[in-house]
Amino acid sequence: MNILDIIEKKRDKKELTKEEIEYFIKEYTNNNIADYQMASLIMAIYLNGMTNKETADLTLAMAHSGEILDLSVLKKPIIDKHSTGGVGDKVSLVLLPLIASLGIPVAKMSGRGLGFTGGTIDKLESIPGYQTNIDINKFVQNVDKIGISIISQTLNLAPADKKIYALRDSIACVESIPLIASSIMSKKIASGAKEIVLDVTVGSGAFMENKENAEKLAMQMVDIGEKVGRKTVCLLTNMDEPLGYAVGNTLEVIEAINFLKGEKIKDLEEIVLQMGYHMLLRAGEANSFSESSEKLLENIKNGKAYDKFIELVENQGGDISYIDNPSKFEKAEYIEPVYAKKAGYVTKINAKEVGKLACYLGAGRIKKEDKINPRVGIVLNKKVSDKVKEKEILGYIHSDDKEKLNNAIIELEKIINISDKHVEQKPMLLGVINNGNL
Amino acid sequence: MNILDIIEKKRDKKELTKEEIEYFIKEYTNNNIADYQMASLIMAIYLNGMTNKETADLTLAMAHSGEILDLSVLKKPIIDKHSTGGVGDKVSLVLLPLIASLGIPVAKMSGRGLGFTGGTIDKLESIPGYQTNIDINKFVQNVDKIGISIISQTLNLAPADKKIYALRDSIACVESIPLIASSIMSKKIASGAKEIVLDVTVGSGAFMENKENAEKLAMQMVDIGEKVGRKTVCLLTNMDEPLGYAVGNTLEVIEAINFLKGEKIKDLEEIVLQMGYHMLLRAGEANSFSESSEKLLENIKNGKAYDKFIELVENQGGDISYIDNPSKFEKAEYIEPVYAKKAGYVTKINAKEVGKLACYLGAGRIKKEDKINPRVGIVLNKKVSDKVKEKEILGYIHSDDKEKLNNAIIELEKIINISDKHVEQKPMLLGVINNGNL
Repeated sequence: MNILDIIEKKRDKKELTKEEIEYFIKEYTNNNIADYQMASLIMAIYLNGMTNKETADLTLAMAHSGEILDLSVLKKPIIDKHSTGGVGDKVSLVLLPLIASLGIPVAKMSGRGLGFTGGTIDKLESIPGYQTNIDINKFVQNVDKIGISIISQTLNLAPADKKIYALRDSIACVESIPLIASSIMSKKIASGAKEIVLDVTVGSGAFMENKENAEKLAMQMVDIGEKVGRKTVCLLTNMDEPLGYAVGNTLEVIEAINFLKGEKIKDLEEIVLQMGYHMLLRAGEANSFSESSEKLLENIKNGKAYDKFIELVENQGGDISYIDNPSKFEKAEYIEPVYAKKAGYVTKINAKEVGKLACYLGAGRIKKEDKINPRVGIVLNKKVSDKVKEKEILGYIHSDDKEKLNNAIIELEKIINISDKHVEQKPMLLGVINNGNL
Repeated sequence: MNILDIIEKKRDKKELTKEEIEYFIKEYTNNNIADYQMASLIMAIYLNGMTNKETADLTLAMAHSGEILDLSVLKKPIIDKHSTGGVGDKVSLVLLPLIASLGIPVAKMSGRGLGFTGGTIDKLESIPGYQTNIDINKFVQNVDKIGISIISQTLNLAPADKKIYALRDSIACVESIPLIASSIMSKKIASGAKEIVLDVTVGSGAFMENKENAEKLAMQMVDIGEKVGRKTVCLLTNMDEPLGYAVGNTLEVIEAINFLKGEKIKDLEEIVLQMGYHMLLRAGEANSFSESSEKLLENIKNGKAYDKFIELVENQGGDISYIDNPSKFEKAEYIEPVYAKKAGYVTKINAKEVGKLACYLGAGRIKKEDKINPRVGIVLNKKVSDKVKEKEILGYIHSDDKEKLNNAIIELEKIINISDKHVEQKPMLLGVINNGNL
């Protein structure tokens, strides 16, 4: 077998065999295929597409390019949760302890933020002492002992995916549905998930800006799940404005703590209940959305979810005095309000623009090597559909830099659109796609 | 400007501007764009094509990526001749001295063979002493002094093309008409040609196996010529069976000498007269095919073309005693005949297969770094349409290796198809494409 024949085949729109896909994944991982050859193949895949069979074969080949985490010692199957990313997305921070508090094991490897979207690991690391980079045996022991552990990807999981993803990023081949779908699913399979609940975000703050493409991606992932024997459901959720109010690492952790302590945050709660329902359903802990919502809300109300979060943080070396008293968190040097220039209703808060602004303040990374500043970010005071008076506070900028602060104030005021006409908040759940087996 | 935006644009089938094309050619030549980024762009060009404007811009950008040879000191404009390559193609060896013998200056930079096609430089180097790698000033002086010089590409001509061509070869992106056309034309422009006569070969032994693609390539090159101010004509010529009888470096030089000494080789003569006509026409030395043919054949008959070849070889340091007495050329260790297994007519001699066989014997290169053996190759005794008796000699294998000799004997016998039915030799000239200005 040889890479030139494989490139030629895909270039000529022919279907690659399982063996051909396994060959190029293996040889690329072992550095026997040059980056420029893989780049040419990737562009051919981008332009000529892949059949569902090819995509499933690619997913499995990437999943098996490194270690596969064996979670069978945990007795209960792991239901993995994954989001395609968004702005202000702190769902994992609240949903995972909540699920664990209901006795469903959570063994979660999360990612870091890149570009305008944040990452769970960066957020957890803003809690002093929290160790995200722990040994894999300790990780499994943690899950066994307290029912939950959230760490970064310490294992050499799906190294082919890592290598291909980095390449795609530098050759303008990121936005390919079979490549995105296989990338996500290969990591889920390698990390030992038996059942997968996916949050495919849609809107200005998401990877998929329109519902049509999000649906295609969701269907592709569900199809892969079916072909590789992992029950998969995809929720399409709205990411037009930031989720909740806070955008920035420490700021989002504080919002998550407040949520777990019972504070009502409407859009966040809606996503938590919807994702939670599908996880409880798969775990056999609920049969209907109302039954599941009741259980989830009850464990917020009775403090069990919050206690589980404390347990998680403590067990991973985090200083829980910060959780008990979030005012202990280090604050940015400048915290300044942004005022409304006119009265009206908030009609639009472009999530991507907010994400970029947070990034500009230092909350995110442009390049992988960039360091993030946990303190900085944006806290909204208003959301879409809210009524606003003239000179009322729209939100706050948290910045460590005076010039950036001033620019961000001007920018945020522009991002938050105010109109005479009232608009409703868009529904959070835009669709559910699964393979019909559940 | 940035390469990612350029890749994205071509990926999305948008037309690149002149500035964008100049940018990526310049930056790639200067190693500021990675091979994998160029590979991705090249595959996008392969699959999404290029407009005629983009192709002309690419040609000029590549031509200007290195030195541009200034031949204005020669007073007469240089009419360049180029072939897209074939098997047994010794046209340059005979046509160029012939043209020069009529007072039309020839300043020719030729290439080496790669794969199943041969190269003029390899053939000339089989003449002991012939220097192909000479200083550019000496090259121009030679042309000025004796009216002809044929050398290898010593100058840094179109380095972008060289780099891109090597890349295309390793990413399955060779067969792209805009890329082939711009590659050929950029080198012609850089080597100082004012008028260009191109031989686009068609058939099993050519780059373009069918006439439709050959026509597309020819039209593209003529269009580039028009856009960049170089009068260009393309002859489509038949390359289904090898041209002439000899395939292999020394063997072809000997055939060329014999041709210049007056031996009739029908298909070779036809190409020489057709290409020669268009060169004479452009030089103002003939107005019709019959007038030009008369002049060309006359200079073979009166020995002037042969004398010019002797002058060329001598002037470049070659030992002319070999030309005068070709039996002096070193011979391969084994020269064995191949016999016909049955009587009939030769209906097909697949030129590509013959080229590959010559390559196998050592006459060609698989990789650029390979060394060639000038002595080895194949000499046919029969051509398509010839009558053959049982056990008659079809051709000879010249080999330095006993095992290869035996394999080649079996192989050549298979390549030469013999049938009961007689077929005519295909016409050599399949079409002429020019931009109507001449």
